[in-house]
Amino acid sequence: MERVSILGSTGSIGRNTMEVIKSLASKFQVLGLVAGRNIRLLQEQVDRFKPRIVSLERKEDAEEFRSLCEDSSIKILDGEKGAEEVARLDENDVVVSAITGINGLRPTLAAVRAGKKVALANKESMVVAGPLIQREAQKSGARIIPVDSEHSGVFQCLRKEKKENVKKVVLTASGGPFFRISYEEMKDKTPEEALEHPRWKMGEKVTIDSATLMNKGLELIEARWLFGLRPSQLDILIHPQSMVHSLVELKDGSVLAQLSLTDMKIPIQFALTYPEREETFLPPLDLKRIRALEFYEVDSDRFPLIKLARRALEEGESVPVALNAANEVAVEAFLEKKVKFSGISAVVADALEGHQKREVKTLEEIFEVDQETRSVTAHILGNR
Amino acid sequence: MERVSILGSTGSIGRNTMEVIKSLASKFQVLGLVAGRNIRLLQEQVDRFKPRIVSLERKEDAEEFRSLCEDSSIKILDGEKGAEEVARLDENDVVVSAITGINGLRPTLAAVRAGKKVALANKESMVVAGPLIQREAQKSGARIIPVDSEHSGVFQCLRKEKKENVKKVVLTASGGPFFRISYEEMKDKTPEEALEHPRWKMGEKVTIDSATLMNKGLELIEARWLFGLRPSQLDILIHPQSMVHSLVELKDGSVLAQLSLTDMKIPIQFALTYPEREETFLPPLDLKRIRALEFYEVDSDRFPLIKLARRALEEGESVPVALNAANEVAVEAFLEKKVKFSGISAVVADALEGHQKREVKTLEEIFEVDQETRSVTAHILGNR
Repeated sequence: MERVSILGSTGSIGRNTMEVIKSLASKFQVLGLVAGRNIRLLQEQVDRFKPRIVSLERKEDAEEFRSLCEDSSIKILDGEKGAEEVARLDENDVVVSAITGINGLRPTLAAVRAGKKVALANKESMVVAGPLIQREAQKSGARIIPVDSEHSGVFQCLRKEKKENVKKVVLTASGGPFFRISYEEMKDKTPEEALEHPRWKMGEKVTIDSATLMNKGLELIEARWLFGLRPSQLDILIHPQSMVHSLVELKDGSVLAQLSLTDMKIPIQFALTYPEREETFLPPLDLKRIRALEFYEVDSDRFPLIKLARRALEEGESVPVALNAANEVAVEAFLEKKVKFSGISAVVADALEGHQKREVKTLEEIFEVDQETRSVTAHILGNR
Repeated sequence: MERVSILGSTGSIGRNTMEVIKSLASKFQVLGLVAGRNIRLLQEQVDRFKPRIVSLERKEDAEEFRSLCEDSSIKILDGEKGAEEVARLDENDVVVSAITGINGLRPTLAAVRAGKKVALANKESMVVAGPLIQREAQKSGARIIPVDSEHSGVFQCLRKEKKENVKKVVLTASGGPFFRISYEEMKDKTPEEALEHPRWKMGEKVTIDSATLMNKGLELIEARWLFGLRPSQLDILIHPQSMVHSLVELKDGSVLAQLSLTDMKIPIQFALTYPEREETFLPPLDLKRIRALEFYEVDSDRFPLIKLARRALEEGESVPVALNAANEVAVEAFLEKKVKFSGISAVVADALEGHQKREVKTLEEIFEVDQETRSVTAHILGNR
């Protein structure tokens, strides 16, 4: 029986993780849950999975939760410290890191430093602190198994391949809801329209990032650190069917690919059960019904964030941190209708324009760049 | 430096193998060559690669070759015994088994019994004697690495996967030159038309087998024994672009696939260098230029040999031996214009109709069924 703690249990990945654990109840047991503000859902999860410890984002929510909770033996924490305490619990066998944005970084790092097996869905951690996380994982012996479907695919294809045999890694992108329309048509799209993803059901932040293609940009940077690749080895292909998640090109001309239905339970379960595999009882992938798998080049003129992400990938150091911070702020502003769809990339571009690249070796330096960029981006938004 | 002997050096796979060895001259060296009747090409290969030993199919060719050969130190053999002697040479590190048809069986088995690493292109060996070959490989410690692109793909995808996690293995078929025409249009096609394969440059026998789809039927049976699968785990998909060679469906819903250009040097080189990989210096697979990978169900009404092969796959024992023998005879008759294209499947069906299924445990029993079916098939051909 493996004990699992889930950081971000009430989000999309968290809920899917609970589904997986329910279907593999003889193998996994929930130890700790870290949630945001969805007290009602956390309550349901606690009733169903009986964790020993939970942590909520805000102190007031934790207090409300304590008053609601029937089981008095459950430990209730709050804030970043609470999340970190859950992440590093001695009894954790697996920690699912599924908090969105840079907020996931400290708890992820806590799990890594504690030497856990980490199922990583929080891509922003790797984007802003890839080298730091990998250094700490090496020290502690933590294993990081990606949960993003693209990276899970790469991970599966690379299992028996030596890194020096890898020529290129290609991540596919569905292209999001606006793949087939012009920049003109795209620029005034509303949050409601941008949240209508054609293939994947996901959280709001990542769905908007999919519409701008920034999600793929962040994934390129994530892949760099996850797999220890050079920026020139990483590429993107638009693949509207989202069946082929990634392609690994080897030096002898062979290309290995991983395909599956667009159901996040598949990569989540793989990360949990790795190195084993278990049944998921999903319908099989039926290629003859799908008929054709299409591949297109990315049009970075229509999706300018891809260009910025590519630059951040190549420049490294503080640039991905600034990119991520500006994007988080801009996406939030878009969801609150404070900026147009085309404004997201414009704001991020402006924020990066003024960014002074520098080394970020420590968590403190990373958060300094993050905070600074957030202020700059808020300022840019205010001036529009 | 690994020493390689090539059984079938003047055929299509043999010539491609020589190309691979030429490009990896610092790693591989030719030790022995077994050729059919193309004395002139063998002469060129001997001049270029300086093997220590060669064997020709016919005694008279061997004698002619001896008189032509400038290097008197080279050992020249003939016939099946000669081929077997080359296959089991003590100094062989790798044996490439690339003789076409059941004629490849005895030399392949000789290499297997000698515990060699065998790069297997001669699929008919596995079709008629799979259990025997695997038993002998287990005893001797021989490793069999498939050269067929589909099986090489499966082999690469399965490297790190446990057999119990495999749900299904799907081999793709280009569909051959007649994939898009009706049975009516197909039935009078000439050997010249059938030899115009749209994707692969291969030997005559396998090209005709590709036009009838029998090649894929034989590959299903080959895959059964190569990978130890149940018949129900094996399937075929038509994939006209021939980029995805095979798909391995795992029990958790993940599907692993191997893709490459349609160049046999890729799987040949993989088999030679396995478990390592080396550069092939081929252009990369450019999916955005190909644009769409299509998949279709096989129409076994238009390609009746697929039904017969499926039956042989399921029945096992002597049925695949009879299937293969009848097909070899029918294809030869078609190439000699003694039977129409549609006659190939009709003749094979008739031959199988009269076949009495029985156990085939030994090489002798296999050849008995083979000979018997050849006579029956010749008789059927005579009566048409």
